[in-house]
Amino acid sequence: MQNDHLQEPTLKSETIYAGKVVKLQVDTVQLPNGHQAIREIVRHPGAVAILAITDNGKVLLVRQFRKSCGRSLVEIPAGKLEKGEQPFDSAKRELMEETGYTASEWKHLHSMFTSPGFADEVIHLFLARGLRKGKQSLDQDEFLDLMEVDLAEAERLLAANEVADAKTITALYWWMKERAQAGPRA
Amino acid sequence: MQNDHLQEPTLKSETIYAGKVVKLQVDTVQLPNGHQAIREIVRHPGAVAILAITDNGKVLLVRQFRKSCGRSLVEIPAGKLEKGEQPFDSAKRELMEETGYTASEWKHLHSMFTSPGFADEVIHLFLARGLRKGKQSLDQDEFLDLMEVDLAEAERLLAANEVADAKTITALYWWMKERAQAGPRA
Repeated sequence: MQNDHLQEPTLKSETIYAGKVVKLQVDTVQLPNGHQAIREIVRHPGAVAILAITDNGKVLLVRQFRKSCGRSLVEIPAGKLEKGEQPFDSAKRELMEETGYTASEWKHLHSMFTSPGFADEVIHLFLARGLRKGKQSLDQDEFLDLMEVDLAEAERLLAANEVADAKTITALYWWMKERAQAGPRA
Repeated sequence: MQNDHLQEPTLKSETIYAGKVVKLQVDTVQLPNGHQAIREIVRHPGAVAILAITDNGKVLLVRQFRKSCGRSLVEIPAGKLEKGEQPFDSAKRELMEETGYTASEWKHLHSMFTSPGFADEVIHLFLARGLRKGKQSLDQDEFLDLMEVDLAEAERLLAANEVADAKTITALYWWMKERAQAGPRA
């Protein structure tokens, strides 16, 4: 393998907590210099997020309260993978549940580690176009506000630091890059 | 407050683990519909990341092994905030330690929640220009490979899914957007 010299073999692994969403384990590893170190690792089932753009050039955003952050955040539609669920199936399900939209065109943009320093969470980011409005069907205990904003408003929200969710910032910059590369008429 | 209807008051909070880097707590909250729910929350000290661009248009990347992900990742320079440390001081320190570079021009781009579903980690993303090469000074137990890539190579790495770190994808799309908006001569 290309990066053998950076590996950290596990000497010991202890599970501290196995919860509904996350699992916490503490590993003792051997470093390339022979020293030992502790790695606190959060295991997560993974998630999907959807950059959904309507035919009239608006992106779908949801605002929801995030207990871990102590505030509400503006985010693209997203959600955890269910047990055994494929990312693409999950993306279709989450888009429908959170926004009521279905999409006829899908593209996988990235599968990305959100917090590699302490967690294994991967978010699978999809682009969805060809949107058709159906009926929102939130989980019984899910509460969110749906917004649709155009590119200029998305740029303003970013510049004003009103978007504080990393996956949403990633997705919006991807969109702005695409539009800028396509030229002024895009 | 604007989004009172989305709040989740805490009914009970239990600390499961307090480690070197993360703390795990499990909160019982009250939902807007009166139901109760469990929130597993990882507390993290926060981190900085630096999009550092050399005078000849190359971005600094580091490859390091990430135990939580079980593989090495290509990332922009980054690191955890030390106790009491301000994000900007941390960014200057991490850039110097991981790459050996200092920068004369700094700009704060975003402070973003990386995993709002289960963690409070915030990454403060900075742009650094006016780079001057000094001497890399890694922590004793830190191991990484330094790379410098131009915009075309960065685009290739993204398109080939060879960059799997979310903050790095965010930063590279920001850079591509800026360059595209500045026109073909930028």
